[in-house]
Amino acid sequence: MARIGFVGLGVMGGPMAGHLLKCGNSVKVFARTPSKAMSLVSQGAIAVDGIPDLVKDTDAVFLCVTRSEDVEECLGALVPHATPGTLFVDHSTIAPDAAKRLHSDLESVGLAFVDAPVTGGSMGAQKGQLTIFCGGKREAFERALPLMSAYAKRAEYVGGPGAGQTMKLANQIAVGGSLLALCESLAFAEKAGLDLAQTRDVLASGAAGSWAFDNYGPKILARDWSPGFSVKNQRKDFGYTIHAAEELGAAVPGTRLVDRLLAELDGQGHGEWTTAALFDVLVRSDPDSWK
Amino acid sequence: MARIGFVGLGVMGGPMAGHLLKCGNSVKVFARTPSKAMSLVSQGAIAVDGIPDLVKDTDAVFLCVTRSEDVEECLGALVPHATPGTLFVDHSTIAPDAAKRLHSDLESVGLAFVDAPVTGGSMGAQKGQLTIFCGGKREAFERALPLMSAYAKRAEYVGGPGAGQTMKLANQIAVGGSLLALCESLAFAEKAGLDLAQTRDVLASGAAGSWAFDNYGPKILARDWSPGFSVKNQRKDFGYTIHAAEELGAAVPGTRLVDRLLAELDGQGHGEWTTAALFDVLVRSDPDSWK
Repeated sequence: MARIGFVGLGVMGGPMAGHLLKCGNSVKVFARTPSKAMSLVSQGAIAVDGIPDLVKDTDAVFLCVTRSEDVEECLGALVPHATPGTLFVDHSTIAPDAAKRLHSDLESVGLAFVDAPVTGGSMGAQKGQLTIFCGGKREAFERALPLMSAYAKRAEYVGGPGAGQTMKLANQIAVGGSLLALCESLAFAEKAGLDLAQTRDVLASGAAGSWAFDNYGPKILARDWSPGFSVKNQRKDFGYTIHAAEELGAAVPGTRLVDRLLAELDGQGHGEWTTAALFDVLVRSDPDSWK
Repeated sequence: MARIGFVGLGVMGGPMAGHLLKCGNSVKVFARTPSKAMSLVSQGAIAVDGIPDLVKDTDAVFLCVTRSEDVEECLGALVPHATPGTLFVDHSTIAPDAAKRLHSDLESVGLAFVDAPVTGGSMGAQKGQLTIFCGGKREAFERALPLMSAYAKRAEYVGGPGAGQTMKLANQIAVGGSLLALCESLAFAEKAGLDLAQTRDVLASGAAGSWAFDNYGPKILARDWSPGFSVKNQRKDFGYTIHAAEELGAAVPGTRLVDRLLAELDGQGHGEWTTAALFDVLVRSDPDSWK
């Protein structure tokens, strides 16, 4: 059993901290919004008043926040109070460059770090069925693995510092393309007067089939744009992707296109909608503006 | 048992005619390239010298050729010799508008017609596991269904004249987007120095997963650009898609992008390569030209 600190109790981090508790670990939690910690406290977590308290007498600290700056800010508050040897695991999706800097900063003061972004959505977090892409030193990954197994169906070591984030961006490129495939085909079917439920069903069963068809298809049929994974967070990840692609000299025209389409929703104040609302953009837009 | 004529014995039509034979039907075949008919003759098919001979004493004629013009030319040669009531089933992927005209032409001389493009690839044809999208009169579909079941895992009535072709175009939009998702994510991973086999494997298991990841992924790892479904045929279908989208006022920016990327291969004389070679375009291209 480990003594764990957990920062970031949102739709992903909340259930993950719950799984760590269920596995018998001692878990201290901190949330900027104290109400987010309440259900975890009822499950046995210890709420602390400030980030520094999280790291006292703690073997490992997990983070699940949003942006590079959020992770940098949290670690900036935690690191001065950490005992050498403490393990830090970051489940946020951030820029690979930022993750590399953090690896180097933490290593220089004797702390272990794993960049470990996750995929599988809020449902995967609730069911403890996330996929985790891990970068850093292999020893650090191996320390983190038994703890992460509380909520992972698959946690994979993919390379050195930042490699977990890089793999996550590759994943987001494919997720974006797959979303476009789904939304563009259904928007075409809608304009052509095909039965949309039948179209989703019959396309999903063949060479067009995908996780997106199975999981986002039903949301489109119901015009249910509640998140799910929000437009704003998808665009945050695309921002990191496009920046990394520029550094690497990689062509990401599909990601750029999906980002431009989602920017329409963002611009209309729908940044909190699920990304499947890209269907709505395509159905309502002037086709001549997307040639 | 039915008396069937079959035109077009390529990688799709050849195995389909073979399945019709195995189910005990009498099958007459015609191929412009006589050698293509030979293996079917050894399975019991009757080779005829000209298209008109196919339709004599025949209950149903199946076509599996390439372009709208090919179907129009074949039907132009067949129809004058057909007994009223003969059923025509077209498995080619052609323009929905052309299919609508053919429905109307054949109906006017008392012939039944089903537009019935297929998906599932050469492997699906060989295994008799194709998905078939059927448009036309429901009675005609119901006559065709028991015959098509020789090679279909799923044959679905999707609407009136041309609806099968329209559904196939919706399918190709999704297939194209899915191909882009796969190739762009793997090309990014390649530039970033990730292990490509691991990337394919780990992305396939999560929210980025798709038929393309499972079936085209291994070809990319092997840099095996043998068809499969060729760049040229995919672009033929995209041509119909983009034209239909313009008529319908549907936005298909993803299809346009994938078509432009595949045009690179076509322009370099690689029109016969499999579409998974889009990976190669992305890896070798100047990223600034795809912004």
